[in-house]
Amino acid sequence: MATIHDVAKLAGISRTTVSRVLNCHPYVTEEKKRKILNAMKQLNYVPNSSAQRLRKTKTDTIAVFVPRITNPFFSYLVEVMENEAAKFGYKLILCQTHYNKEQEKKFLELLKTKQVDGVILTSIENEWRHFKPYLNDGPIVICNEYDDDAYVPSVYLDQVKGGYLGTKHLIDRGYKRIAYCAGSERRSRLTRDRRKGYEQAMKEASLVIDEDWYLYNAISIEDGKNVFLRLKQIKNRPEAIFTGSDEVAAGLLKAAKDSGWRVPQDLAIIGFDNQPLAQLLGLSTVAQPVEKMGSQTMKVMIQAITGEESKNPTNLSFHLIHRTTT
Amino acid sequence: MATIHDVAKLAGISRTTVSRVLNCHPYVTEEKKRKILNAMKQLNYVPNSSAQRLRKTKTDTIAVFVPRITNPFFSYLVEVMENEAAKFGYKLILCQTHYNKEQEKKFLELLKTKQVDGVILTSIENEWRHFKPYLNDGPIVICNEYDDDAYVPSVYLDQVKGGYLGTKHLIDRGYKRIAYCAGSERRSRLTRDRRKGYEQAMKEASLVIDEDWYLYNAISIEDGKNVFLRLKQIKNRPEAIFTGSDEVAAGLLKAAKDSGWRVPQDLAIIGFDNQPLAQLLGLSTVAQPVEKMGSQTMKVMIQAITGEESKNPTNLSFHLIHRTTT
Repeated sequence: MATIHDVAKLAGISRTTVSRVLNCHPYVTEEKKRKILNAMKQLNYVPNSSAQRLRKTKTDTIAVFVPRITNPFFSYLVEVMENEAAKFGYKLILCQTHYNKEQEKKFLELLKTKQVDGVILTSIENEWRHFKPYLNDGPIVICNEYDDDAYVPSVYLDQVKGGYLGTKHLIDRGYKRIAYCAGSERRSRLTRDRRKGYEQAMKEASLVIDEDWYLYNAISIEDGKNVFLRLKQIKNRPEAIFTGSDEVAAGLLKAAKDSGWRVPQDLAIIGFDNQPLAQLLGLSTVAQPVEKMGSQTMKVMIQAITGEESKNPTNLSFHLIHRTTT
Repeated sequence: MATIHDVAKLAGISRTTVSRVLNCHPYVTEEKKRKILNAMKQLNYVPNSSAQRLRKTKTDTIAVFVPRITNPFFSYLVEVMENEAAKFGYKLILCQTHYNKEQEKKFLELLKTKQVDGVILTSIENEWRHFKPYLNDGPIVICNEYDDDAYVPSVYLDQVKGGYLGTKHLIDRGYKRIAYCAGSERRSRLTRDRRKGYEQAMKEASLVIDEDWYLYNAISIEDGKNVFLRLKQIKNRPEAIFTGSDEVAAGLLKAAKDSGWRVPQDLAIIGFDNQPLAQLLGLSTVAQPVEKMGSQTMKVMIQAITGEESKNPTNLSFHLIHRTTT
């Protein structure tokens, strides 16, 4: 029986790329994909995991990992995923990790114990080596987050661009001292990339970043209020802030207004996501295509379960919405 | 083997009340409960459904029906339920009915096909006779909604009081022409009761209700904006509005402000739920104890699955939060 090495050799393409195609990973050129699929046909190659999966009992159930369902970004994502899953006769198990490594590992056991056909991760707490062994038990699809070590189907946006877009908007509006706010300093590739985008925009405009302007551990409305208190203490006080979250931006806006600050005159604020509250509060924000992300992820997951050939995902991109806070 | 009739006869209490106790229905006096439990012990009575359940394979999975997970009231309810379920090793399947009778019936099949151990309903679309046959397959617990025909465990608040509380607040603030807004005119007992509370408060204050002041089919932020357009057309224009939903109130507030109206001077608005956006927007609202409702419901459900004796639920009540819109 042909192996993945034989396919790579015949196609003249690296094993990694073949593996990417098998796992429906995006961003493989159509030409390479075609060559690999041709080689697979010629060799009558059956991917290992598909062969394994045929032996398994199907549960028609998919687990979706989210940090918290009450964060509107995730509730909208899950809404779309559940609708899409129901259309194809799949049920969705909701797993809230609460940004906790152990909770995430515990929920992964659902895959090992065959209680679900697959797992969708919308956030990643553990390093990829913890997920890898579970791939023998069923497909894992990543949505929103991404990880360089993970050769699994992933639906995500380039967060460098997201960070750049929001920061560039603030610079274009004339602000120079711009603070950067995020959930966690180290946790994820997503946060690191978004910060890269911020730094890139600042560098391009020859603006020097003060180390005090990095504000971390902010994910909720309450955290946003707290960010305002921290921001007030900064010696070289910023005149604008990139928050990375509409909820943090909303809490910050509320606290600033309650203290008599004018927004954007005393402090400009930009959110992230374009949640309903952003529109209600007049928050400028970096909008994410949540619906597309959710439905595409579920499609990719069902394809991975059924072993259908996957289509290259449509291109997902951010766009900026200018309202009253910048 | 003893039957439910024997238990009722020995305890000297109606069969209906015995059935209520068996189904962990709240609002049975402690004395009656004690008498029934004594009679059960004397007769060595085993409830039918518990006996059936012992024969079944457990899935450790509970289905939760919500209209839409993106409505923050339901996402908070589900968050608490999932946390509580995970503590006891249960998984939660999310079922969005989208206020649709057929979708609700389809999801009920999960119980018949033994894919879940029990079903929690946070909204009810069909008449109770459609649910009844499924009780042979596992417990159904109702949360938030209620139905007179349903002798199943139910965790809910007296919505007459909720409607009364919000309307009374508007009357106390000096408003006389008060409109009433709700999701659907006929759909549920919840909506009908809330309207009763509104009418009761108006009657007590000798205020006459104009038929034009009833505004239905409003559940989302967008609907709230639409309510403003409808409200502007009313001949005998109301000076205050009870919305029954923070999201509707938020949309209405936004549309009113965008049109240059002052709130509360030109129109007073009261929401319902006390969602995070109510606090952010300064909405006066009728607060619901969502956390308690969610955790209590999940406890009752797990008790119903395991056949444990249930405790009488703690008392749940509304409270009014006065902010800037009234």
